Amino acid sequence: MPGFLSKLLRVLRERRGNDMPFMCRHLLSERGEASQTALAEEIINAYRAMNAGQRPQFFEMLSHDFAPDQTTLLRAVSDYQHSPGPSTLAALSAAVESPRQELFRRINTAPRGTETLIALREHLSTSKNSGDFAVIDFDLKHLFRSWFNRGFLHLERISWQTSALILEKLIGYESVHEINGWPDLRRRLEEDRRCFAFFHPALVEDPIIFVEVALSKGLTGDLEPLLDIQAPVLASETADTAIFYSINNCLRGLRGVPFGNFLIKQVVSELANELPNIQVYSTLSPLPQFSRALRDQRNEDGFTHYRISRLLADDSRNLTQAARRRDPVEALLQLLEEPLAHRNVLAKPLERLALAYLTQVREGGKLYDPVATFHLSNGARLERINSFGNLRSYGLKASFGVTANYRYLPAELEENHERFVRGEIQVANGLVSDHKAVAQAWQVSR
Amino acid sequence: MPGFLSKLLRVLRERRGNDMPFMCRHLLSERGEASQTALAEEIINAYRAMNAGQRPQFFEMLSHDFAPDQTTLLRAVSDYQHSPGPSTLAALSAAVESPRQELFRRINTAPRGTETLIALREHLSTSKNSGDFAVIDFDLKHLFRSWFNRGFLHLERISWQTSALILEKLIGYESVHEINGWPDLRRRLEEDRRCFAFFHPALVEDPIIFVEVALSKGLTGDLEPLLDIQAPVLASETADTAIFYSINNCLRGLRGVPFGNFLIKQVVSELANELPNIQVYSTLSPLPQFSRALRDQRNEDGFTHYRISRLLADDSRNLTQAARRRDPVEALLQLLEEPLAHRNVLAKPLERLALAYLTQVREGGKLYDPVATFHLSNGARLERINSFGNLRSYGLKASFGVTANYRYLPAELEENHERFVRGEIQVANGLVSDHKAVAQAWQVSR
Amino acid sequence: MPGFLSKLLRVLRERRGNDMPFMCRHLLSERGEASQTALAEEIINAYRAMNAGQRPQFFEMLSHDFAPDQTTLLRAVSDYQHSPGPSTLAALSAAVESPRQELFRRINTAPRGTETLIALREHLSTSKNSGDFAVIDFDLKHLFRSWFNRGFLHLERISWQTSALILEKLIGYESVHEINGWPDLRRRLEEDRRCFAFFHPALVEDPIIFVEVALSKGLTGDLEPLLDIQAPVLASETADTAIFYSINNCLRGLRGVPFGNFLIKQVVSELANELPNIQVYSTLSPLPQFSRALRDQRNEDGFTHYRISRLLADDSRNLTQAARRRDPVEALLQLLEEPLAHRNVLAKPLERLALAYLTQVREGGKLYDPVATFHLSNGARLERINSFGNLRSYGLKASFGVTANYRYLPAELEENHERFVRGEIQVANGLVSDHKAVAQAWQVSR
Amino acid sequence: MPGFLSKLLRVLRERRGNDMPFMCRHLLSERGEASQTALAEEIINAYRAMNAGQRPQFFEMLSHDFAPDQTTLLRAVSDYQHSPGPSTLAALSAAVESPRQELFRRINTAPRGTETLIALREHLSTSKNSGDFAVIDFDLKHLFRSWFNRGFLHLERISWQTSALILEKLIGYESVHEINGWPDLRRRLEEDRRCFAFFHPALVEDPIIFVEVALSKGLTGDLEPLLDIQAPVLASETADTAIFYSINNCLRGLRGVPFGNFLIKQVVSELANELPNIQVYSTLSPLPQFSRALRDQRNEDGFTHYRISRLLADDSRNLTQAARRRDPVEALLQLLEEPLAHRNVLAKPLERLALAYLTQVREGGKLYDPVATFHLSNGARLERINSFGNLRSYGLKASFGVTANYRYLPAELEENHERFVRGEIQVANGLVSDHKAVAQAWQVSR
Repeated sequence: MPGFLSKLLRVLRERRGNDMPFMCRHLLSERGEASQTALAEEIINAYRAMNAGQRPQFFEMLSHDFAPDQTTLLRAVSDYQHSPGPSTLAALSAAVESPRQELFRRINTAPRGTETLIALREHLSTSKNSGDFAVIDFDLKHLFRSWFNRGFLHLERISWQTSALILEKLIGYESVHEINGWPDLRRRLEEDRRCFAFFHPALVEDPIIFVEVALSKGLTGDLEPLLDIQAPVLASETADTAIFYSINNCLRGLRGVPFGNFLIKQVVSELANELPNIQVYSTLSPLPQFSRALRDQRNEDGFTHYRISRLLADDSRNLTQAARRRDPVEALLQLLEEPLAHRNVLAKPLERLALAYLTQVREGGKLYDPVATFHLSNGARLERINSFGNLRSYGLKASFGVTANYRYLPAELEENHERFVRGEIQVANGLVSDHKAVAQAWQVSR
Repeated sequence: MPGFLSKLLRVLRERRGNDMPFMCRHLLSERGEASQTALAEEIINAYRAMNAGQRPQFFEMLSHDFAPDQTTLLRAVSDYQHSPGPSTLAALSAAVESPRQELFRRINTAPRGTETLIALREHLSTSKNSGDFAVIDFDLKHLFRSWFNRGFLHLERISWQTSALILEKLIGYESVHEINGWPDLRRRLEEDRRCFAFFHPALVEDPIIFVEVALSKGLTGDLEPLLDIQAPVLASETADTAIFYSINNCLRGLRGVPFGNFLIKQVVSELANELPNIQVYSTLSPLPQFSRALRDQRNEDGFTHYRISRLLADDSRNLTQAARRRDPVEALLQLLEEPLAHRNVLAKPLERLALAYLTQVREGGKLYDPVATFHLSNGARLERINSFGNLRSYGLKASFGVTANYRYLPAELEENHERFVRGEIQVANGLVSDHKAVAQAWQVSR
Repeated sequence: MPGFLSKLLRVLRERRGNDMPFMCRHLLSERGEASQTALAEEIINAYRAMNAGQRPQFFEMLSHDFAPDQTTLLRAVSDYQHSPGPSTLAALSAAVESPRQELFRRINTAPRGTETLIALREHLSTSKNSGDFAVIDFDLKHLFRSWFNRGFLHLERISWQTSALILEKLIGYESVHEINGWPDLRRRLEEDRRCFAFFHPALVEDPIIFVEVALSKGLTGDLEPLLDIQAPVLASETADTAIFYSINNCLRGLRGVPFGNFLIKQVVSELANELPNIQVYSTLSPLPQFSRALRDQRNEDGFTHYRISRLLADDSRNLTQAARRRDPVEALLQLLEEPLAHRNVLAKPLERLALAYLTQVREGGKLYDPVATFHLSNGARLERINSFGNLRSYGLKASFGVTANYRYLPAELEENHERFVRGEIQVANGLVSDHKAVAQAWQVSR
Repeated sequence: MPGFLSKLLRVLRERRGNDMPFMCRHLLSERGEASQTALAEEIINAYRAMNAGQRPQFFEMLSHDFAPDQTTLLRAVSDYQHSPGPSTLAALSAAVESPRQELFRRINTAPRGTETLIALREHLSTSKNSGDFAVIDFDLKHLFRSWFNRGFLHLERISWQTSALILEKLIGYESVHEINGWPDLRRRLEEDRRCFAFFHPALVEDPIIFVEVALSKGLTGDLEPLLDIQAPVLASETADTAIFYSINNCLRGLRGVPFGNFLIKQVVSELANELPNIQVYSTLSPLPQFSRALRDQRNEDGFTHYRISRLLADDSRNLTQAARRRDPVEALLQLLEEPLAHRNVLAKPLERLALAYLTQVREGGKLYDPVATFHLSNGARLERINSFGNLRSYGLKASFGVTANYRYLPAELEENHERFVRGEIQVANGLVSDHKAVAQAWQVSR
């Protein structure tokens, strides 16, 4: 901080100490304008010095002291009712916005403001009584949706030329397929890999979302060759397929601000420009709650014993024989305790069940799988389902090793999205008949 | 635009042509999400292609079709009245925000979005029926205050090393003391001058506000040596004074978004770091409406014949003699027709009248002079008044050549600002007794 | 300069003052090593403070005190004669290199070293007794050819985004077609113009050579549309021709260090990448000494009365009629006093004479015209000759307005160069028969 | 490589294949000028494709075919003898320079030229018959001393913000105190460490020399706290001492081109600017051949039995007792087999012997220890000798764990260097009496 502001701050501190409610009120008041940045900086420092035990008191204050004034609001409400028009609307609009929002905007004027507010929202979400602070979360999310508008983000390629500081953060943020140290990261940045991230100008050294891409010959549903550090490096110009195998949001404090759909489309554009040979853009994605959904039979719109048994159909005999049980559903569930030991028997039924999981299981009317929801809503189509595509322990645990490919066909994106909005799910030709069969089996309820 | 998006766009265009209302509605709808950026780009292009005659129809649409839904809003209003609480407040808050804001946020996702929205607001302000579009202006201003938060701006020094593209824009934007071509600009960027601008990351090649500073030995109220292209260049380390002689907002579309106060304080910090010898930070400012205020005697809180005559007091005789008129006020106004011809007689009375103008004249309860309001509210004090400091034609016309210095004393800024909020104006020691005298003369009304 | 070196320097100065011979000897000695950079800086400052009158004494010293030691050299010479071998060769090689070169290398270790040595060489060339200092010039040129190796230069596009500091230098350095201020420069950097320069890492803000290119539809020999500030701007992607209309070496001190051939080929590559529509790369070049050559009839390998008369042949009658003189050569020369008044009569003979000038006139066995020599040696072919292509006064004076196009055909460059080395000049198909006729007329001597 | 040059190259290849002698000769010839860069590129590619077995043939060719022409040289020699003067000197100078140098300069015109030539020199030094190729090495070194002039290098701070690509190279190049992976590197770049490197513009991603610095409170001779990954991080502004604990030349091909002295002084300047609290600049250095020198008693100017016994003097009794041998020298050497087991007994004698090693042992008239030579010649003084400062295995092996501090006192550098040139060695006050005693003991020969 420049010398002159620090003088200001010293004067400030002498005159009123480290009193957060005072500082926040003063920052919002007309009187505090002349020292806005210094005050904001002071608040930022005071907040950053708090530990988890001290924050709730601050959240309480934000929640109560900076809510809209109810008297003013009720008056504005009543004025609008009596004569709805531009001026009463403007007054109502002003009265309904919580002073917190302006407080946050003013805090943001000082260095590290944005990152502190993002941290604050993360702290909120992990706070004990986070429910009480929903109004704060609401205000921050509203601000962040405006500040982190796609027009203010810039895409950057991450490579081995990138600073170690940023690369180290990738290692920390990767949560889909953990990066095991620098040699693993290095392999993910070789000539046949690409990594792109969105950055925001106020967070220079912090990616906010990134995607990892493998260039390959042909599409695959197998994760292992993509993650193998020793895998031979392909000359990028000989690749015909780009596989998006990991997408990570970095900052919990930005939860609910949408970047992912922009990122994928932008990266498809970048790759199309750089590598005209690429014919296929597709993900290799997890089915994060397949295992849970299959076992949870309390969900009416989910897997029921009857539905599973219909879906197993032709495979029932193999399963009962292998498990030495009479009920094919029980047989299945037993075999799934050790899926690798029964790959041959399980491969086919798993594919069909996964197809049902991805396209039929719903909760609260919405598609159950978040990854499927994201890509299908984004205009991709379900391209392939791969049993035993992810043999890592977390893959077996979450989805018995099943993986899915969602393919992005630029020419179809818009139409697919519109169909999805209408409730239709687009699948590749190779999945069409299975998709129909699964839907039919699912619909017949007993 | 990347090839893939352009394909999308082509498909789009074939399917529905260049229909703005449709495109805007579609951009806001869930169905339009998959092609958000492409749609936004299309809207931007269509808007930029409009001429002044075509825009009002578009503004009409924005104003009517994207207002908050009145039925929903009235229901939310009534719900809140019956049970004010977090959930009814949230619903009210959502209902009151005009869909225009979300539309603008989505337009902003495409390249050139920000600059187009800024241009749109400028177009609004120059549109015939701009009053009808106040709601659009309101929404844009609200967005811009959030987007152009000081935390997202960065200060850059403008020098002869800066790109010609940006320098050319300075020439265009300078409206206080016109820059007469490149040699004039070059002199303003020599070693004894400084120029700083705020930039926003979404407007890479457009400064949004800039300030020009002259380094000198001692404070001056005379403009000429600062603007003289031939003036000898001072070694910057020998200067003891920094004079802010021109501050310019560049983009009309950002009117009302405050940057100036941040800019000046930031620049003071920068200079303090770079040049520890600088003791005095001060402006050399115009009195843009002094001449108008003196002649306009309809304003109750302004110059009246009685007040002027009291302020002239001891100088009355000189004025009446010089003008050969009996009434000193009439004498004064007559001499002011040719101020340069009567420098000796006018110098003193002009200083006193200017002091009254800057500190006493009010309109609607607020200080009349916008420049004084800006600096005094910002925590500066009135340091000096200089008759015949600006002999250029626009200076003589606006203020009979009078200039003012507002001085920024870091240690006093906050206190001065607080005093100003309470209605007190801080002046330098040298002006204190005059200030009292003027106030006294002013108060006594007849 | 960092504080610590400045202390060193102060100590230095106290101990021995500003004594150039001492400082230079000390810099070369083993004892001076510890303070090499400080000493070098001192020498640089002392040199830069000299005026034109003081420099010759310094040059004298460089020339005498830092020449190879004759005794050592004669011994090395004699040793090598007696037993030529690696070790005597190495000794000879060491003895023959003048200590000046090492002195210059050491001076170069300090900031501004390179630019000071370049300035020194320029000063040498304008010094009264520059002939006496040829040895210094020789050493500097040898160093510069090594330091300014093409591998150390980087090409940069100059545009309106470039810093004003560099653009201002272009205005100063342009000597082929003067840039008349900033608006002229701006037009030369519009979308249908390109400008590229070579920079050296030690001269960050100084281009060392630059070329200006006009993009157009079709090749032209007329300069005016290229230089016209008001000319409409062509969309660059619609151009099919790139015309190199001005190439300028910037630093006299680098005279004789070849960059131009690299520059043109590199720029052709850049343009080919950026603008695939460009089919023709050609210059529009002056004939700087055509006028002089035509009037100077003392050169045996130049224009003689007999040769001119043979070249005029069929046009003789028109000329004699127009000039009302009997001798066609005299008629020609008379009409050329006012070439614009006789465009019709002169156009054809001027083209033929210019062709002879460019391809036949020699001096000392070498082609006479330096521009033709440069481009033809570089592998270009003579594409067109244009009478009255340059109507500006300097064009009329130097070449009666004639211009030439040299075309760069990538596939032919190497072969054309090899032909040129063998003495053949490559011309476009349209010039072949004229070229033969001219050669024939030229050969027949009387 | 741009498209157009690649065409050229294709034509080239078709016409003459991959014939190195031809390409090199052609590149040097006048005929090859038009395709210089393409030819150079071809040669570079061909060279890079060679394996260690193929290179010697190429070196042979360089050595024989591109030597100065003997006939021309003998004529120039004889001409100079008969009339020594500027023109015969110039001719001699031209004749003595080997065409290899011009060949190398032309190879350098293409991309990767510089790095290829540096690699070539490295290959030379590891080639079987490297002695035969001394002339090539000589020419390259001569070029490199010119090209890698300090004036063309720039200092860069290396930090955790630096690209992983460059950081990875540091890990590879560090040879004094091996960097054990990324966490070790990261600790060396924390707030209380500094790392600076020289870069050359033609080698963008390759540091050519770097130095690692530890900031500390007080000077230490113990390596461990500096290398300990877990050591607590000191706030840099509280440090008073900067310890240069590792300096590494990166490129073997640049051996003999001096950078180190410039680097240290420049870094001292940088640190002095950044951290005004630093009072002491010192190295913590190894004694790389202390162990060897102590055991090698064949060197007349080195350790002899007599000298060692005189140096041991008062410690003899302790040593003989500890080793249970009568001869103190033999006792010493026996104890040094397991130095850590006898720290108490060995500490003092090792310090004295190390002092003798650093200041007295010579070979060929020059100081024996290369690190001492480097720093003392550079103007530093010997500040401290620390027995058991480096307990790592390589430290025990090379110097029984002894380390030395060389201190850089800006004000003394020049004088110390001059003394060193005269044969005097400057030591800190604390070492003066020991230094005298050691020198006396050493001088008395038997």
